[in-house]
Amino acid sequence: MARNKVADVTESTVKQRLLRAALDLFTERGYAATSVREIVDAAGVTKPVLYYYFKNKEDIYLELFREPFVNFSKVLEDAYNEKGSVRERIVRLFDLIFELFVSRLKEARLMYSIYYGPPQGAPFFDFDSFHLKMREVIGLIVRKGIEKGELRAVDADIATWLLNGSLNFVMEEQLCHRSPMIDRSGLLRILDLVFEGLTDKKRKKR
Amino acid sequence: MARNKVADVTESTVKQRLLRAALDLFTERGYAATSVREIVDAAGVTKPVLYYYFKNKEDIYLELFREPFVNFSKVLEDAYNEKGSVRERIVRLFDLIFELFVSRLKEARLMYSIYYGPPQGAPFFDFDSFHLKMREVIGLIVRKGIEKGELRAVDADIATWLLNGSLNFVMEEQLCHRSPMIDRSGLLRILDLVFEGLTDKKRKKR
Repeated sequence: MARNKVADVTESTVKQRLLRAALDLFTERGYAATSVREIVDAAGVTKPVLYYYFKNKEDIYLELFREPFVNFSKVLEDAYNEKGSVRERIVRLFDLIFELFVSRLKEARLMYSIYYGPPQGAPFFDFDSFHLKMREVIGLIVRKGIEKGELRAVDADIATWLLNGSLNFVMEEQLCHRSPMIDRSGLLRILDLVFEGLTDKKRKKR
Repeated sequence: MARNKVADVTESTVKQRLLRAALDLFTERGYAATSVREIVDAAGVTKPVLYYYFKNKEDIYLELFREPFVNFSKVLEDAYNEKGSVRERIVRLFDLIFELFVSRLKEARLMYSIYYGPPQGAPFFDFDSFHLKMREVIGLIVRKGIEKGELRAVDADIATWLLNGSLNFVMEEQLCHRSPMIDRSGLLRILDLVFEGLTDKKRKKR
């Protein structure tokens, strides 16, 4: 079926509206407690419209994470291929991941709630893959940094935990139920400390 | 009513059994979906026994977090008053907090699920207070370290984020649905990197 631009725009709007409605309901009431009927009502469409875009409730749920994961993987791949010092590459990458996270706070909240909460019958999405992929790519960049002498000869795995933990903590702060106490600029300052350390190395040698 | 030691032991066992049963049900089915009837059945006691120890379901739920929070506050207070270098004090404190966390993984999982999930009608417990209290005490210790010249003249607030984020990431890893990839000894190695940094400071000066 041939589609013109206007039709495509409308389609994507309806699909987005369904995703948005499902996301709101899943986060507010929980996945199990939300019905397809409630999703279509909230989106202001009919059931056949939902079934045109999605197979079922499971499919909408999975779609909520598929796209962020694709974007996330893309950002990581680009970062891996970027030029610049290892430190610059890590800072730029963390900045992008943070931005991506902030643009998807509701999805992140749902992810946490499903990951830590009762299973609720939601289909399996491999949330760990965010963490594992991050670990892999940052690990490679850190190893490169050590190889090139840009980083000290530290344990690359431990350094990766430290870096990713710094990012993770600042991201989670954005999910809290009050105003976050740290933002993007705070993250960049934390990273400076990660690279430079809390102690003065010269002092230790005396 | 006078109680002898045997009675006290029995009492504490029954109370613990009720708490344990409630914790299991809240984490597996959710707070809202769990009834007082199910809790007493799972604990193998009658309703009047439950109401001897607890006012209602809300009260059991809150009790699950009250005791860990008291222990946590105690550990923090002791740490603040300890002797030793600032670095030693922070490492010892993080080690204790980590141990406490690992001994309460199920409570931690429930806390995450309630904090990030749909409210489920659970009464308010100020989970943020763990984070805020940690922030306060570590902040004070870091400031002391800077004052005494044990730490560089860094931004104490940013250094606190870095330290607490490192601990947080390793704690959360213990909640994952596979074998954790890092443990206590990894945490201590991360802390070494936090103090010493990923880069060689001498190199930068050239």
